[in-house]
Amino acid sequence: MISAGDRVILSGKGKTYLVRAGDGSLGTDLGMVDLSLLIGKEPGDVIATRSGKELVLRLPRATDFFEQAKRSGAPMLPRDIGLVIGLTGMNKKDHVLDAGTGSGVAAVFFAGVAGKVTTCERREEFFRIAFDNIQETGLPNIDVVNLDVLEVDGIFDIVHLDLGITREHVRHAYSLIRPGGYLVCYTPFFEQMGVVYDTAFEVFSEVSAYESIMRDMNRSDRGTRPSTKVCHSGYLTVARK
Amino acid sequence: MISAGDRVILSGKGKTYLVRAGDGSLGTDLGMVDLSLLIGKEPGDVIATRSGKELVLRLPRATDFFEQAKRSGAPMLPRDIGLVIGLTGMNKKDHVLDAGTGSGVAAVFFAGVAGKVTTCERREEFFRIAFDNIQETGLPNIDVVNLDVLEVDGIFDIVHLDLGITREHVRHAYSLIRPGGYLVCYTPFFEQMGVVYDTAFEVFSEVSAYESIMRDMNRSDRGTRPSTKVCHSGYLTVARK
Amino acid sequence: MISAGDRVILSGKGKTYLVRAGDGSLGTDLGMVDLSLLIGKEPGDVIATRSGKELVLRLPRATDFFEQAKRSGAPMLPRDIGLVIGLTGMNKKDHVLDAGTGSGVAAVFFAGVAGKVTTCERREEFFRIAFDNIQETGLPNIDVVNLDVLEVDGIFDIVHLDLGITREHVRHAYSLIRPGGYLVCYTPFFEQMGVVYDTAFEVFSEVSAYESIMRDMNRSDRGTRPSTKVCHSGYLTVARK
Amino acid sequence: MISAGDRVILSGKGKTYLVRAGDGSLGTDLGMVDLSLLIGKEPGDVIATRSGKELVLRLPRATDFFEQAKRSGAPMLPRDIGLVIGLTGMNKKDHVLDAGTGSGVAAVFFAGVAGKVTTCERREEFFRIAFDNIQETGLPNIDVVNLDVLEVDGIFDIVHLDLGITREHVRHAYSLIRPGGYLVCYTPFFEQMGVVYDTAFEVFSEVSAYESIMRDMNRSDRGTRPSTKVCHSGYLTVARK
Repeated sequence: MISAGDRVILSGKGKTYLVRAGDGSLGTDLGMVDLSLLIGKEPGDVIATRSGKELVLRLPRATDFFEQAKRSGAPMLPRDIGLVIGLTGMNKKDHVLDAGTGSGVAAVFFAGVAGKVTTCERREEFFRIAFDNIQETGLPNIDVVNLDVLEVDGIFDIVHLDLGITREHVRHAYSLIRPGGYLVCYTPFFEQMGVVYDTAFEVFSEVSAYESIMRDMNRSDRGTRPSTKVCHSGYLTVARK
Repeated sequence: MISAGDRVILSGKGKTYLVRAGDGSLGTDLGMVDLSLLIGKEPGDVIATRSGKELVLRLPRATDFFEQAKRSGAPMLPRDIGLVIGLTGMNKKDHVLDAGTGSGVAAVFFAGVAGKVTTCERREEFFRIAFDNIQETGLPNIDVVNLDVLEVDGIFDIVHLDLGITREHVRHAYSLIRPGGYLVCYTPFFEQMGVVYDTAFEVFSEVSAYESIMRDMNRSDRGTRPSTKVCHSGYLTVARK
Repeated sequence: MISAGDRVILSGKGKTYLVRAGDGSLGTDLGMVDLSLLIGKEPGDVIATRSGKELVLRLPRATDFFEQAKRSGAPMLPRDIGLVIGLTGMNKKDHVLDAGTGSGVAAVFFAGVAGKVTTCERREEFFRIAFDNIQETGLPNIDVVNLDVLEVDGIFDIVHLDLGITREHVRHAYSLIRPGGYLVCYTPFFEQMGVVYDTAFEVFSEVSAYESIMRDMNRSDRGTRPSTKVCHSGYLTVARK
Repeated sequence: MISAGDRVILSGKGKTYLVRAGDGSLGTDLGMVDLSLLIGKEPGDVIATRSGKELVLRLPRATDFFEQAKRSGAPMLPRDIGLVIGLTGMNKKDHVLDAGTGSGVAAVFFAGVAGKVTTCERREEFFRIAFDNIQETGLPNIDVVNLDVLEVDGIFDIVHLDLGITREHVRHAYSLIRPGGYLVCYTPFFEQMGVVYDTAFEVFSEVSAYESIMRDMNRSDRGTRPSTKVCHSGYLTVARK
């Protein structure tokens, strides 16, 4: 049941609106909506605008966050975040260290899965954006810290690095990972993948590197073909301690 | 802390052994191990064999299950399971319906992430294998049922279908999904993807289809090149209600 | 040695100009060029503009034609034309039938390789553009005809079809091909490939279908990564009689 | 019309036999064939074995050479040879330098297209195999030389290198290429591509590098899907003088 302060997505006529249940109102293409009407409803329920048009309620998911969060650069794509989760078997017992935070997209996906996520971002202005984005989700299990990952200590099940990677990052990550845990580095460039692979190969017990080429299939009356958009996003190196 | 009955992975000299802490002993390449010694240890601790050699302890993860579970066919790969999780934003509030179970690999990965997983397998012999595999993991939040998914009812956040798909499956899935939730179908063949896409397009609000081509990068003294192994695993269709 | 009327490419300061040796002059970024100066020169020679700047001479190739010909739609890419040549072993003894001509790009590449090329284009306005483009190249071994390929008869070593394909096209092509010769169909959509494959499978002795994913590698100071542009261009079906 | 000494392919019942028209006979699955019967026939004609079964005649093409030539290593695939031809616009006016020869496959494809091919192979034993393979084809326009390409001089329209590449190879190739001509290097490993690209970038006017991922589409009653075989063969770097 939706309570005051809960974030809700309203959708109708192909448009979606992210709102908070409670005081106030929202103007939509279908008319004004009183946000207090949302309280006590369930996902899937329908509410009427003042013009008598209908909007469907649903709760936001990480995929909505990806679409709607304020960005501070090119965020990781849900498909690549999913690969990190699948290739490590990330689960609700894990404490995950994520660096750098960027706009917070990976951290928010991980927080839906893991027990706890610590995400660190060195650059103050990126930290601010991420902090606000993550605050807004209401997720209770993310710590956003304004710190260089090289200064982090602790013990983590998974360390995920999406930053200008060096050998030092890989070695420091090793010191933070529980035996049986994973380091995953996402790197857009081939040469960065080489740095991660070679350094990890010296200290971790298993290392693999992957390129993921994912293609949207376009389907229309003319037929089906792969889209030519963004088929490369980056290289993933996965190392197990 | 490890208790009697917990599953533990022992590793040493490049080999790994999946055991249960408690009575009995295990013969390894490094000598006999008393399994009662595991009780009270922490992951990362070291125990000695009777020959004085050392083995490191760690707790099993879903990725270990993928390597070690008894198989009843070609299981989904962790990379594809990860894509399902990433593209839906699967998280610990979700109730996931998974069909068909196969050897249980997808269900076990999902159970690490989701609040609850119901997995159904129509074929009695596959159901038996999956039931035993899943029982063995000790995961408390999976229901394995010996049922055709077309007979399942209830409300789910995500329905995942990996079976000989028909239009009826897609329509039935729609009736089981909460607004804002997702259907994901994994299909090895192009034509199956077309069936899912076209049927989903009639009833769901958003539909996308993807081909994932993932390549292991082989790195050696001679240089780096993509492996030529298993670059195609299948098509994923993702539909949102 | 360059004669009056020969086509020549002049290049200097990163710009190229396609001209004909003979009367007249051309204004370039480096000053006016007297085109009569080209007569008697060799490729690789340098001529001076009236301002005393230098331009290098070279003869145009099919790859220049691809860049500079007037277009009547999306032409086949040189990479895909090359695949047709490689997968059929096209050579100077071959008589090639090409349909539809489009802007003439494939026909021009083929004419550099094959003994003779007959290219047919049903649509009058496309035929006009192709005819002029091909005339301009001075290639002596291409016949451009304004005809539906279904009305063509004769015997060919290779038939290349790049048009809205039907089963009838594939069957008619079979009747035109010498034993040991090849049909190659380029189709942007998957379903068209299916039509070609299935029809060809009934009558030809060997049939293969391919998808070619070609990626530009972008290399800069930041590192190397595959471009995300045009990685799919189409499917090729190759059938041998 | 087939003359004594011509190479002919006989096919029947899904088998093919490469023979020479003239004296002697050949045992086939369909019975003995008198090879003198081939003289005076045309491709597409049928001859009878002594057992009265029929075989169809055709002339061998480069694609047959690829299947049947004696190998001295992994030859370039027809698809990659085709890319070299397409990306350079190779044609019958060109003099092509090819190194190293390997088993001669690329040289034989090029000789069908170009005016003249010089192919050099440093290793004596590979040179022997290639020499015999190429002799057997009867192609009049290939010179096979037992020489390190670094010792070759002359002027070529296209230089094709498929060998353990160094910066010196790229620089030497530049000195051998006519203005407007091309260097193409085929390299299985990423790092080799980097060496070629960076060296070529210093001296040539345009440089591009590509990865070609080509996939056989498997089509059966179960449906269509990309094969998982050999989707990567190598990187191609193309530089224009």
